[in-house]
Amino acid sequence: MTQSPPSKPFKRILLTGAAGGLGRILRERIKPWAEIVRLSDVVDMGEPGANEEIVRCDLADKAAVLALVEGVDAVLHFGGISTEAPFEDIMQANILGVANLYEAIQKHNVKRVIFASSNHAVGYYKTTDMLDASMPARADSMYGISKCFGETMSRYYYDRFGVETVCIRIGSSFPEPANKRMMSTYFSYDDLTEMLRCSLFAPRVGHTIVFGMSDNPSVWWDNRYARHLGYKAKDSSEQFAGKFPDTSEFPEKDDVTTIFQGGKFLLDGPMYR
Amino acid sequence: MTQSPPSKPFKRILLTGAAGGLGRILRERIKPWAEIVRLSDVVDMGEPGANEEIVRCDLADKAAVLALVEGVDAVLHFGGISTEAPFEDIMQANILGVANLYEAIQKHNVKRVIFASSNHAVGYYKTTDMLDASMPARADSMYGISKCFGETMSRYYYDRFGVETVCIRIGSSFPEPANKRMMSTYFSYDDLTEMLRCSLFAPRVGHTIVFGMSDNPSVWWDNRYARHLGYKAKDSSEQFAGKFPDTSEFPEKDDVTTIFQGGKFLLDGPMYR
Amino acid sequence: MTQSPPSKPFKRILLTGAAGGLGRILRERIKPWAEIVRLSDVVDMGEPGANEEIVRCDLADKAAVLALVEGVDAVLHFGGISTEAPFEDIMQANILGVANLYEAIQKHNVKRVIFASSNHAVGYYKTTDMLDASMPARADSMYGISKCFGETMSRYYYDRFGVETVCIRIGSSFPEPANKRMMSTYFSYDDLTEMLRCSLFAPRVGHTIVFGMSDNPSVWWDNRYARHLGYKAKDSSEQFAGKFPDTSEFPEKDDVTTIFQGGKFLLDGPMYR
Amino acid sequence: MTQSPPSKPFKRILLTGAAGGLGRILRERIKPWAEIVRLSDVVDMGEPGANEEIVRCDLADKAAVLALVEGVDAVLHFGGISTEAPFEDIMQANILGVANLYEAIQKHNVKRVIFASSNHAVGYYKTTDMLDASMPARADSMYGISKCFGETMSRYYYDRFGVETVCIRIGSSFPEPANKRMMSTYFSYDDLTEMLRCSLFAPRVGHTIVFGMSDNPSVWWDNRYARHLGYKAKDSSEQFAGKFPDTSEFPEKDDVTTIFQGGKFLLDGPMYR
Amino acid sequence: MTQSPPSKPFKRILLTGAAGGLGRILRERIKPWAEIVRLSDVVDMGEPGANEEIVRCDLADKAAVLALVEGVDAVLHFGGISTEAPFEDIMQANILGVANLYEAIQKHNVKRVIFASSNHAVGYYKTTDMLDASMPARADSMYGISKCFGETMSRYYYDRFGVETVCIRIGSSFPEPANKRMMSTYFSYDDLTEMLRCSLFAPRVGHTIVFGMSDNPSVWWDNRYARHLGYKAKDSSEQFAGKFPDTSEFPEKDDVTTIFQGGKFLLDGPMYR
Amino acid sequence: MTQSPPSKPFKRILLTGAAGGLGRILRERIKPWAEIVRLSDVVDMGEPGANEEIVRCDLADKAAVLALVEGVDAVLHFGGISTEAPFEDIMQANILGVANLYEAIQKHNVKRVIFASSNHAVGYYKTTDMLDASMPARADSMYGISKCFGETMSRYYYDRFGVETVCIRIGSSFPEPANKRMMSTYFSYDDLTEMLRCSLFAPRVGHTIVFGMSDNPSVWWDNRYARHLGYKAKDSSEQFAGKFPDTSEFPEKDDVTTIFQGGKFLLDGPMYR
Repeated sequence: MTQSPPSKPFKRILLTGAAGGLGRILRERIKPWAEIVRLSDVVDMGEPGANEEIVRCDLADKAAVLALVEGVDAVLHFGGISTEAPFEDIMQANILGVANLYEAIQKHNVKRVIFASSNHAVGYYKTTDMLDASMPARADSMYGISKCFGETMSRYYYDRFGVETVCIRIGSSFPEPANKRMMSTYFSYDDLTEMLRCSLFAPRVGHTIVFGMSDNPSVWWDNRYARHLGYKAKDSSEQFAGKFPDTSEFPEKDDVTTIFQGGKFLLDGPMYR
Repeated sequence: MTQSPPSKPFKRILLTGAAGGLGRILRERIKPWAEIVRLSDVVDMGEPGANEEIVRCDLADKAAVLALVEGVDAVLHFGGISTEAPFEDIMQANILGVANLYEAIQKHNVKRVIFASSNHAVGYYKTTDMLDASMPARADSMYGISKCFGETMSRYYYDRFGVETVCIRIGSSFPEPANKRMMSTYFSYDDLTEMLRCSLFAPRVGHTIVFGMSDNPSVWWDNRYARHLGYKAKDSSEQFAGKFPDTSEFPEKDDVTTIFQGGKFLLDGPMYR
Repeated sequence: MTQSPPSKPFKRILLTGAAGGLGRILRERIKPWAEIVRLSDVVDMGEPGANEEIVRCDLADKAAVLALVEGVDAVLHFGGISTEAPFEDIMQANILGVANLYEAIQKHNVKRVIFASSNHAVGYYKTTDMLDASMPARADSMYGISKCFGETMSRYYYDRFGVETVCIRIGSSFPEPANKRMMSTYFSYDDLTEMLRCSLFAPRVGHTIVFGMSDNPSVWWDNRYARHLGYKAKDSSEQFAGKFPDTSEFPEKDDVTTIFQGGKFLLDGPMYR
Repeated sequence: MTQSPPSKPFKRILLTGAAGGLGRILRERIKPWAEIVRLSDVVDMGEPGANEEIVRCDLADKAAVLALVEGVDAVLHFGGISTEAPFEDIMQANILGVANLYEAIQKHNVKRVIFASSNHAVGYYKTTDMLDASMPARADSMYGISKCFGETMSRYYYDRFGVETVCIRIGSSFPEPANKRMMSTYFSYDDLTEMLRCSLFAPRVGHTIVFGMSDNPSVWWDNRYARHLGYKAKDSSEQFAGKFPDTSEFPEKDDVTTIFQGGKFLLDGPMYR
Repeated sequence: MTQSPPSKPFKRILLTGAAGGLGRILRERIKPWAEIVRLSDVVDMGEPGANEEIVRCDLADKAAVLALVEGVDAVLHFGGISTEAPFEDIMQANILGVANLYEAIQKHNVKRVIFASSNHAVGYYKTTDMLDASMPARADSMYGISKCFGETMSRYYYDRFGVETVCIRIGSSFPEPANKRMMSTYFSYDDLTEMLRCSLFAPRVGHTIVFGMSDNPSVWWDNRYARHLGYKAKDSSEQFAGKFPDTSEFPEKDDVTTIFQGGKFLLDGPMYR
Repeated sequence: MTQSPPSKPFKRILLTGAAGGLGRILRERIKPWAEIVRLSDVVDMGEPGANEEIVRCDLADKAAVLALVEGVDAVLHFGGISTEAPFEDIMQANILGVANLYEAIQKHNVKRVIFASSNHAVGYYKTTDMLDASMPARADSMYGISKCFGETMSRYYYDRFGVETVCIRIGSSFPEPANKRMMSTYFSYDDLTEMLRCSLFAPRVGHTIVFGMSDNPSVWWDNRYARHLGYKAKDSSEQFAGKFPDTSEFPEKDDVTTIFQGGKFLLDGPMYR
């Protein structure tokens, strides 16, 4: 249940990856939470709106990142590469980028961080497995490996410096499920927004890993260790069930995209044959 | 949320035990899922309706079972003995029957199997215990032992041949709870039907064990390992609460039918004194 | 779903602590469950109403307690000290009191006991931890230690004599949450009453530990091991969310009242500096 | 540490399968434990020695089994088929046989039972998995399924009648390891004998499942739940390490006999292609 | 492996219960660890030896206990009642006594505490169960309940004040096993001494619960969570195996002294019938 | 128990980090396992000995690494930075280096990989915690984070390509413990060598994580999930106990180097204040 705070709770929030798929969606939705929203990306983000600051920034540039974070109360880190790519590219954007960001976060005493992790951090679990946040990661791609890295790095910053982060292993955050797999991983924009709100304003989050999903009928993930966040999904993929009629056209027994949770990522990557 | 598929998803489903208590209920309810429903039992099943095939068959007859399964896409195995009985009878119907059935299923490349297991596979757990599918079975009867056997056999066929089975440990599937115990184990016909639908059409089920129950206020079973099925109960025994007013007439301390989950089965059996 | 029993199920219920905060609330609410409600406290409880018996009693007085319990079918033990206090006082009221009470309960063959335990039995877990009833206690105060004692004592009486007790680790049972912490621990009077009803009338409870809370958005406790009770919360702290607007005024990193579940109890106690 | 009891502790022990591989080994070794050793098998067992009784008996013959068990204090059940075979044969010897045997055991108040189960009850776990007795069975063969059946049946007889059984999931009990796999599963005759002794004479065993193995350097099984038996292995496969020099001739990636614990049984069976 | 430190590591150790069974054994054995050993009991302890201080003290006397602990570096708390007794007596000696002691320990900045807990804190587990320190306590007596209390109290003092305690759930510390049960619970004096030494000198122990036992063939307890202590048993009950020859004279099925770990305590107590 | 194979089992083993502390120790010890040992480092490694190949190589140079791995059967990866360092340096050597190495390993069909991970991957667990390989990593440094990265990367290569790796979280592999902490983490050179041998020659290792330690009296790690390797330590830090006499000079309560397993790494790093 969102409420209208008497004044905006944060002075300045930084949203990285503001030009990306989810960044564009969130740009408007996070405005109620801060007097100023600072937006960052490596590509053009258009003109700043009211109470917006636009900062073009390559996260691999340490000095630039240090400047980017100055004056910021909270960081929503949605930047970096969000699909499979050659490791060298992933490393610059998602590994060096995260390292630079957390160093800046710690130096500037940022109060709260949300790290957009991914279900691809655990994509090699089976679609018949039930995961919770205590189980070891099993990345399905270079991209997924970089998300595991971000989770490890943020854990370190919490253990050593007390920087509080919520890592959201985002499922499939799109207007609607594009295939049957997404019936299990669907994460509506409204639910994503609510999970961000809960993660930003819970008094204590420590270092929390949570799976980003709506209240779907079929799920693979159990969020029991993140119930302190107070997140309750309001949407469900059930409304889209009609798009995927019951069928006996089952996938082949050796079809890795349905055996494993990672889906098409099981086929991606420069190294796969 | 059921949906009307544009055409019936399966060409032919086999329902064993079609003359039994649940078999008669399901005979109509499964029609939307297959162009042809093949019905089987050892006793008379009446005349075939539209799109029905009637095959009288003793599951202990290997050759007959092999013929029974030919041309079948999916099997709903509700056949065999469903109450306590002398072991020799149980063995023919529920042990040899299951062995014959799975051999035929594998030979005919059946796509999906549902095995009607029972709460009596775990009837020696206490009514104050909370079970999940990872815990060892504790059968309460020869009948319950035969259901454990079916679960073990189906696991083997999945591990060795990739035959996918959902084992449903059915609670109490009746029009309404007949006693206080069934307030915990109630499984409405609609919920049973929905669980069958989910089990038949999930893209992957591997070898799944699930407890068959409605969304009752008091439950003994936790279905967390079967959430990939997408089953959501729509009914609850709560509507029948008025049948069993609050009372302090508690059972005796040594009353095994309320100490253990198996209820009256704790008193059944040719060997019990 | 409460139902109107044809007659009151118990002949006589004893409510200890009847003059306390929750005792006064429950005095009316428990009337439907017994023909006679016996009320007990060390302080004045006013005049007895219809079907009420008033017994002034110090629980540390063994003979008095033995008399108090005579003729009683069920005990709701809300008596004793309910805040932090010097150990000697806690010991008389909450330790000797509980020992006297259970000895009397066993001698008089009381059928069912509810022990008002407290979240302060586990107050040294973190607010980012998720607890269940199988985890070791971590008391946050002399008061919390006395509640652990009661849980241990009642477990003994179940193991040795079969006395059945439900220990309710009560969260924050007040008209509404008084601070942000209580958004997680809120336990409405209606939900408390329903949990008592479930605990009193379930056919078997053995020795059950359950966390007393409403269906709050943010929770720290998982009641999976008590689902046999049949309790379903009807209230939620969500309705009070507007009292605590989202804010970035987070507590200090070393603020123990928000690090640990026990809240202000972390600062209480005669010994704390 | 074996000790010489002043007199033989049992009056009569029954050893089934006395003509089998292990039966012949045990025939001499168990003599110190009983004044009379009754030997049973379907095939010839030679002449009875001193203090021996020879009873030719088909375990599938219920009346014969009832007679066989009369006057017996303890049963070591090593009878039945011990390799993969058609299910119908397995069913007669290992399923009906076990059912008949336990019915007789209960009727004749036998004090203690040892059931020779097998590692093939869990042969579909991987050789990189670590098992303990609380994990679900995963049989690798019809033979393995029949051993799961025996474990389930004996559990039932304990829960219902208090018949105490130790199920030993025997690894590879041979003079020495015949291949590299047996370096992990080796169970020397002396260690087998000691495990039998511990299982026969522990004051209480309830229903215990234990893995039968020596103190081998590489193991797949953890016997922590059976430490009450007091078994300590004295042998190790390490002495045979020289038979299997270190080599880089690793098995193929898809070689099921080394992926799974069951070894060659993964290739056995009338149904496998 | 004990070593001879160049000088005695502690200035003063307090041993409570110095006139008790174990106290008398330990009086000599702990001398190498402190320049002065202060001995305390409610009964006569004889004359002080070299480097000994004798302080007669009732632990229920708060002021006396405060004085007793002054100047002490480490406390070995073996005082109080060590058998079943009426609750009122247990309460004074073992509950108020422990509360007084810890208050004094905290006020005087004692560096390390060892609390002599007991296997009777978990005596209602079965002799076929395997326990570890994370499992809930199940006391078998008023005495056992008081030991649970001490564990809870010491946990509190660690969580709140950082007072480090090792709670040793002592098995059967006698010259040799007096019955078959003690073959599982035997704890030689040398092993007890070594466990004390490890507990006193490990750099960090936090709040550790450990089971006090030798390396017996049959055990019920798993000390995995206390391996940081560095304790390795050097003795075993195996040397006494000859005292208890193998026998088939098993206890009756309902003999609680062999069903449950607590042994004869299952029959003790003023309240038991 | 090592044995002398009739011929050297591998044709060519690659040892990276051959000029490092452990690399120099291993250079001689691994000779029995391969006809040719290829040595690699970024710094001078001296002259090649008999059956040695020397390849100077920067692991961050992808093409060079691809050439380095050509013709290799097994890789022992001890290269990279082995102390805390600025992230940018760690990233080149330990992150890009590992990515390059595994890409080459997969392309050249290397049969077996050993990755020298570190206890610093879990250095933020407490010294009173007991870890096993299923628990989440908690790195204590940039170095530790890079080791987590290597474990994640190697898991990916196993899940996707079947490349088998043993990750050894090395404790303190030195001639002898240099401080009290190393009494728990000590890993003798002989035991390290034996663990390497086991990891290289076990028929199947899948992706195994194992803690590298000797059989020390005090340990923090439980290797139960790696028992298939067949490793048995022959050494113990116990022989060095005399170096660290028992003392009551305990560390301060807030001394992080003894609270956490990582020891001095808790103080290291360019970012720590």
